[in-house]
Amino acid sequence: MVSKNQIKLITSLQQKKYRIANKLFFTEGVKGINELLESNFELEHLYTTLNDFEEVPSARKTIIQENDLKKISALATPNTCLAVFKMPAEKPIIETGLIVALDAIRDPGNLGTILRLCDWFGVKQLLCSKETVDIYNPKVVQATMGSIARVNVNYIELAAFVAETKLPVFGTFMDGENIYKSVLPKEGIVIMGNEANGVSAVLEKLIKNRLTIPRFGDLQKTESLNVATATAIVLSEFCRG
Amino acid sequence: MVSKNQIKLITSLQQKKYRIANKLFFTEGVKGINELLESNFELEHLYTTLNDFEEVPSARKTIIQENDLKKISALATPNTCLAVFKMPAEKPIIETGLIVALDAIRDPGNLGTILRLCDWFGVKQLLCSKETVDIYNPKVVQATMGSIARVNVNYIELAAFVAETKLPVFGTFMDGENIYKSVLPKEGIVIMGNEANGVSAVLEKLIKNRLTIPRFGDLQKTESLNVATATAIVLSEFCRG
Repeated sequence: MVSKNQIKLITSLQQKKYRIANKLFFTEGVKGINELLESNFELEHLYTTLNDFEEVPSARKTIIQENDLKKISALATPNTCLAVFKMPAEKPIIETGLIVALDAIRDPGNLGTILRLCDWFGVKQLLCSKETVDIYNPKVVQATMGSIARVNVNYIELAAFVAETKLPVFGTFMDGENIYKSVLPKEGIVIMGNEANGVSAVLEKLIKNRLTIPRFGDLQKTESLNVATATAIVLSEFCRG
Repeated sequence: MVSKNQIKLITSLQQKKYRIANKLFFTEGVKGINELLESNFELEHLYTTLNDFEEVPSARKTIIQENDLKKISALATPNTCLAVFKMPAEKPIIETGLIVALDAIRDPGNLGTILRLCDWFGVKQLLCSKETVDIYNPKVVQATMGSIARVNVNYIELAAFVAETKLPVFGTFMDGENIYKSVLPKEGIVIMGNEANGVSAVLEKLIKNRLTIPRFGDLQKTESLNVATATAIVLSEFCRG
């Protein structure tokens, strides 16, 4: 049984302002929930239609009907479970190694996929401009497949940070150096731009190292790569050695 | 004005069986429609809320109200236009160069992104197993951003084709050769597997060249890459030279 107040609270968490006000977020599905349970995220409450998650104390778990799950789920086809977690405080920025910085990424799927790529390639720090979609958006948490527990994410005034950093700063542009022929360092900040507009003009001025992913197809066409696939290629090049 | 019959036809085209029965598919948005108009796709009819697309003869164009566009659109937030195109007959398979083959890819966004990657990396041929999501699914056409006009796509009995081909066959597995240290040819078939289950057992037996994309993050975690980002990295490695 889920109370009206619980339904109201959980559905409100689909919106950023209520996530911030309540310091809570949620995710759905056994795999994603288990990843967060195993990490240092603190469970507020778990709702499940099955008698599973035996390790969760009964005070933090409610077995509910599918019908009730539908009322709190953000998915068109609800899974078997939904868990509300406490939103942790932001940790200090890890300003070493390879860092990915996102300039106004708007699509939750893209942010989730990029976080998963950071996890795969051992990137410990993801920086997001204030205009980037919220990492605790349910669609983002869903798409990260648990990587949210392993990569440090901070929302910052990106241009101000980039202006001050001592790390080399990279970005991808049409007129940059061929990334396949560039010698890439083990440390640095890689800036990936907005889906429609690319890197903003203010940031572009701060990027000393302009890279290009060469196009091998029909050169008459100027179609761009999706930002998540471009990030995959860039991180692969930085890490392959 | 859109007639009831037109609404019925166009919304039916969201389902594969009606696309096949009518030999029609549709896409939405100025950019995608323009890409198909400029290619060899034959326009059946264009519906637009603006007085645009001047090059389209009036017999093939209807200016409609936003209200009517909502009735025919497959999008939660309709664009300004929707165009129905004739589905072309499949062309012969181009069995040279680099070929991407998909084994039961289910997600329309993944198929669209992979087609876009093929276009970027100059892959002329995409092969799909019969279990792969339909390329004329509106969500796929939308995600391809026009690349559908530039890459040849065939749905085939993939295992039978792979068993017969003279081209070298590649696949990605956990226990393969490090892709960054492999010498990769200019010609070959790269097989990418289903989102949840990877490459099917039948196909796996036919893959002589097992590759691995090394993981640089926490090695205790076995999280996999999304199939579209894995395809990006594999094609980048085959093409970078």
